[in-house]
Amino acid sequence: MIFNFSFKFMRIGFVGLGRMGFNMVERLLDHKIEVVAYNRSQDKVKAIAKKGAKAATDLADLVGQLPGRKIVWLMLPAGLVTDQTIKKLLPLLRRGDIIIDGANDFYGNAERHSKLCASRGIYFFDCGVSGGIWGLKNGYTLMIGGPKAQFKFIEPLCLALAPKNGYGYFGLAGAGHFVKSVHNIVEYIYLQGLAEGVELLQNFKQPINLAKATQVWGPASVIRSWLLDLAHIALKRPDFKKINPKIDSVTIDELRQTVKAVKSYAPAFEIATKIRRDKTNKFILGKRTIAAVRREFGGHSVSKK
Amino acid sequence: MIFNFSFKFMRIGFVGLGRMGFNMVERLLDHKIEVVAYNRSQDKVKAIAKKGAKAATDLADLVGQLPGRKIVWLMLPAGLVTDQTIKKLLPLLRRGDIIIDGANDFYGNAERHSKLCASRGIYFFDCGVSGGIWGLKNGYTLMIGGPKAQFKFIEPLCLALAPKNGYGYFGLAGAGHFVKSVHNIVEYIYLQGLAEGVELLQNFKQPINLAKATQVWGPASVIRSWLLDLAHIALKRPDFKKINPKIDSVTIDELRQTVKAVKSYAPAFEIATKIRRDKTNKFILGKRTIAAVRREFGGHSVSKK
Repeated sequence: MIFNFSFKFMRIGFVGLGRMGFNMVERLLDHKIEVVAYNRSQDKVKAIAKKGAKAATDLADLVGQLPGRKIVWLMLPAGLVTDQTIKKLLPLLRRGDIIIDGANDFYGNAERHSKLCASRGIYFFDCGVSGGIWGLKNGYTLMIGGPKAQFKFIEPLCLALAPKNGYGYFGLAGAGHFVKSVHNIVEYIYLQGLAEGVELLQNFKQPINLAKATQVWGPASVIRSWLLDLAHIALKRPDFKKINPKIDSVTIDELRQTVKAVKSYAPAFEIATKIRRDKTNKFILGKRTIAAVRREFGGHSVSKK
Repeated sequence: MIFNFSFKFMRIGFVGLGRMGFNMVERLLDHKIEVVAYNRSQDKVKAIAKKGAKAATDLADLVGQLPGRKIVWLMLPAGLVTDQTIKKLLPLLRRGDIIIDGANDFYGNAERHSKLCASRGIYFFDCGVSGGIWGLKNGYTLMIGGPKAQFKFIEPLCLALAPKNGYGYFGLAGAGHFVKSVHNIVEYIYLQGLAEGVELLQNFKQPINLAKATQVWGPASVIRSWLLDLAHIALKRPDFKKINPKIDSVTIDELRQTVKAVKSYAPAFEIATKIRRDKTNKFILGKRTIAAVRREFGGHSVSKK
């Protein structure tokens, strides 16, 4: 049993090989963690097997390939898919096993999943993950909630996935998804700031070079930031002007639910959500910039003219 | 005349040795630019003379110590002080001399000053400066407007003050202050984002360690940024909870004037200005965080309980 939790010989299960999950498994493999991987589409499973993961054909196969106390990391869309997968996993696991949910989910769902798991003696961790498609190279920020005494058993995964000082245990179940939700709310506001910035630059009486402004702000200004650097890259791409000002944000409802649940005052976030939902012909450059920057960090799809 | 514009033997005048100006002169001196410095309070002049600047007792003395085509950099509060200083300088200068205004001013004032200078054959540049009290070490972001053909004569100063890729010429007079104003507007929104973030964290049902959250977000999250790093530092300071939630933003009116003048839609910025002016007991942690982070980057004073 101890065997599986030794850093040198750790093997975990990983479900969900999307934009985030696939790269996370690759980073785990790079850090000598053995991974048994499953994904609904087997193409992704084959692809990750070529990089050293062990392929699983279904959840039972995945669990069957895990030794001792089993750890299964879920990296699936929040909501129904995550919910159903947890329910399918539970009968396959035993007391003391661990489920980690890395989705962008409402913290209340983590509390619910934690209780469900606890009723069977299984430990549940919610882990917010940030870093987008660049995480493979730069590492992933991990924000973790769950049973504190068990955290040491999953910490080797954090050390593999995160950069230095890039992960934190924040409290009981829900705390991880919550801190990630707050991160995403700040992200919405930062992007809204950049959107208002480029709109202002565009509205000046003299033509201002937007790519140059975002470049000059990069090395030493007060607003230097990764999103600013990505805005600079996005503005320079030849297809920038073809990107439709349409922002496909699946997390809006979950984030608004979070603000409401903790009764917090978040007016700039509310503004940001309104802009993302706005279908008018106003604020086109701002909305296009948000869509373009989201493509840069998250690989989120954009539509084009 | 060419002599003064050779990088190796450049000597300029510098008026205003406040939090920004003093360090900028020090950085110029470090880059082998000779500086004749004047400040209303002579204490500052004596202090900068110890670091290698030439002291001036008044504007006439300053101009008298400059060779050939003279360059005078103003780093004064926007408005009356800058205005009066330009008017006092003009009779002391000759055709072809250059004034650079580094204040945080409304772009319309740069246009006005440019015309006033042009009427006497003097060239005027407006130069937005960002980087706060850390600029001495990291370099200053410079955003420049003015007569393009003359820019090469002041570019050696940009190379000395800015980090790599950290300065840009943006257009005729006004463009420099304008791009800086937009930078500051984005800064307001970024700070509002961090303020809403810490408020959310505080309102969670479990106690969340704010210093830890802002630390964990630092190395690899999507919102990694200098202001976030400074928020982490500010939150850890022993006096953080004593800081009054009072934000002394002298630039609000100038920035609102900018948004209005270019008829841009900047709703999150409007939210940020309302929060800064709010005197109620709401959003205390958010306002305190903004005040504390401004102290970190700009040395802006805070009041304490």
